[in-house]
Amino acid sequence: MGFIKTPIKGMNDFLPSDMRLREHVINMIKETYATYGFSLIETPVMEHLGNLTGKQGGENEKLIFPVMKRGADLQRAIENGGELADSALRYDLTVPLSRYYANNQAVLTTPFKSLQIGNVFRADRPQKGRFRQFTQCDIDILGDSSILAEIELIAATTSMLTKIFEEVGISRFTVHVNDRRILKGMAKSAGFDEESFDTVFIILDKMDKIGIDGVKEELVKSGFAADAVEKYTQMFTKITEGISCGDFCSLIGADAIDSSVVDSLDGILSCVKPMISSDVSLVFDPTLVRGMSYYTGTIFEITIDGYNFSIAGGGRYDEMIGKFCGQKVCACGFSIGFERIITILKDKLGDKAFARDKKCIAILVDSKVSTDKLADVFAEATKLREQGNIVTVQPLNKNAKFQIQKLEEDGYSEFRKVYND
Amino acid sequence: MGFIKTPIKGMNDFLPSDMRLREHVINMIKETYATYGFSLIETPVMEHLGNLTGKQGGENEKLIFPVMKRGADLQRAIENGGELADSALRYDLTVPLSRYYANNQAVLTTPFKSLQIGNVFRADRPQKGRFRQFTQCDIDILGDSSILAEIELIAATTSMLTKIFEEVGISRFTVHVNDRRILKGMAKSAGFDEESFDTVFIILDKMDKIGIDGVKEELVKSGFAADAVEKYTQMFTKITEGISCGDFCSLIGADAIDSSVVDSLDGILSCVKPMISSDVSLVFDPTLVRGMSYYTGTIFEITIDGYNFSIAGGGRYDEMIGKFCGQKVCACGFSIGFERIITILKDKLGDKAFARDKKCIAILVDSKVSTDKLADVFAEATKLREQGNIVTVQPLNKNAKFQIQKLEEDGYSEFRKVYND
Repeated sequence: MGFIKTPIKGMNDFLPSDMRLREHVINMIKETYATYGFSLIETPVMEHLGNLTGKQGGENEKLIFPVMKRGADLQRAIENGGELADSALRYDLTVPLSRYYANNQAVLTTPFKSLQIGNVFRADRPQKGRFRQFTQCDIDILGDSSILAEIELIAATTSMLTKIFEEVGISRFTVHVNDRRILKGMAKSAGFDEESFDTVFIILDKMDKIGIDGVKEELVKSGFAADAVEKYTQMFTKITEGISCGDFCSLIGADAIDSSVVDSLDGILSCVKPMISSDVSLVFDPTLVRGMSYYTGTIFEITIDGYNFSIAGGGRYDEMIGKFCGQKVCACGFSIGFERIITILKDKLGDKAFARDKKCIAILVDSKVSTDKLADVFAEATKLREQGNIVTVQPLNKNAKFQIQKLEEDGYSEFRKVYND
Repeated sequence: MGFIKTPIKGMNDFLPSDMRLREHVINMIKETYATYGFSLIETPVMEHLGNLTGKQGGENEKLIFPVMKRGADLQRAIENGGELADSALRYDLTVPLSRYYANNQAVLTTPFKSLQIGNVFRADRPQKGRFRQFTQCDIDILGDSSILAEIELIAATTSMLTKIFEEVGISRFTVHVNDRRILKGMAKSAGFDEESFDTVFIILDKMDKIGIDGVKEELVKSGFAADAVEKYTQMFTKITEGISCGDFCSLIGADAIDSSVVDSLDGILSCVKPMISSDVSLVFDPTLVRGMSYYTGTIFEITIDGYNFSIAGGGRYDEMIGKFCGQKVCACGFSIGFERIITILKDKLGDKAFARDKKCIAILVDSKVSTDKLADVFAEATKLREQGNIVTVQPLNKNAKFQIQKLEEDGYSEFRKVYND
């Protein structure tokens, strides 16, 4: 087989300027969450195949990359028609987190506030913005059933995004908050059967695209009773700007919603509000669905005004970790759309490479320079480095103009040519 | 298959305190090399199988983890008895670097100074200190045939190690420098045949374990002519502390060594010397072999006094990248033994967890605290965070004593309990 220059389809080589931007964002994430008491952890990129196929991954399980057994194990598997793989690349960070928590709980604090940044792998059809290897960033609080978890997660994530995006002139976000129990309570109050909730929510989730009339139409088309549909969609007309969950629930008279749920949601909103920038809209959004069926309580999502996708989302999932590790562990988490954030930042920065935070000086040395003089050159370089500059010492190329142009593109702004006297 | 709590054998879950240490070292590495003008790059952890089995990887090729094809591709391979995998996890960072350079050369500067920190994978038998997933750290300069490359690499790496280890009271290193052409010239001058050089060097490489007499004995046992062995081993008795390469070569009268090689080695040493700590011994070491046969010129290795393994090593390999990408690219690189450095630091730190660099405050909130009061608690937390502290707000557990003990182990030093008035 010949040598292939390009990376595997759907995977990326990151250039120095890409890396500077990615590192900048990663450092902002690490610093912000550290301040809120989150601990960085790391798990292997390979997992036991059985852990990944536990039915919690949904569609992602179809996208698993299995890693083949080695040596005698593989030989035996081939001869006996057994499994060729017993491990695989992880498709998300939640399964590894569950395993990690089960494995290390005894030495971790309770609650445990975790930050993970790592690569995940999906054997998806590659296309623009969809990769087979990409970076995920998950923040989770395990073992805290109180609203403190939601407040810390939403406040930390919003502050982090405000810091990252202010550099490109974006300050307006919307933080949407809802609760699966309110979603269910409204559907129940309208008269839908519990087993049809998922179908109803999938249709409701299209609200921002097709509007309330579109939702109504689709619900009717799907065979739901006209009066239930009418009652249900009427509820959403009561949404007004800045309405609290409590006021909204009183207005719609959804008696199937427990008052403690309403109180906790309004408690979260009132505590988070003063912690975040006044440019950020923090709204109770009864139309927020979040696709994953494993959420059990609060759900949240952050959108940037002017972009039609969310850049972070999450919620409470009190049952999921227990299903993996056999012991109930309440949990609440946020997943940051790292690659989406990078895409928006690159879009805003345009051709302008991500700026260097230090002065970059290139010392270009002619090949005839003597060893004695070379020692002086490096002494100068050391001094410039100690003064906080980035300094490269390298041969002066024959085509110096082109060399300097390339270095300028890479962020260098000062050039010193050294010749023999 | 049931849920397995432990990670895959030979792979690691990193605890928060592990991560603080690893992140600290990684940041030191990134900062130091950035100052010297190295650019961080990243390549996918998966590579084309054909790129990895190009015979350059030596023993490592036997340790490849193949990643299975998916869907229709796999089905077709099974039916036709074809290959089940066409990609695999990388076993080092050099093959991906060669591919990366071939793929992106047009937009990179020449020379290109690259820093890579990433996970590599080897289907090795796991044992103490040997992992199946571990972090490698490679620094390479591509496209610079001058000694500037060696000087920058050795100076940067030595400075970085001095900074990392001074925190645990280690300041004494030895930087060993040699050149494959001196190694070969000495063997040739002694009368060995070119085709026996590899055997001779494998035996010479044991010098630090078996001494000069042991080397002599083994060479004779391996069937080499007594006079060649005598002449060869006599040369090594001329080594004296601080001897320059030039003086050594004059003394031994090895006429097969080109004077330009001697000059370049002495030039490297004289330029690096003033750039590094006076505690570091920088020595010309004619016994230094470095196992990898792909080295073509200068070779170097750094040892810590008192440890019997190297913590960094590298050299010039002007032919290798060309073999991969079909175009001659001279190259010189250093590979840092990241996991070894971590092991030594953990060993020196002992039970003492890696210290927090900020004050950590835990605000522990009783479950009966009202939402109004909660807002005050978070206002206090925000203030403390703005003052540069790490602050966690979390429920006061029933067993507060145990909770606080765990938080203390995690580096927290201040605790504020909040109850309803």
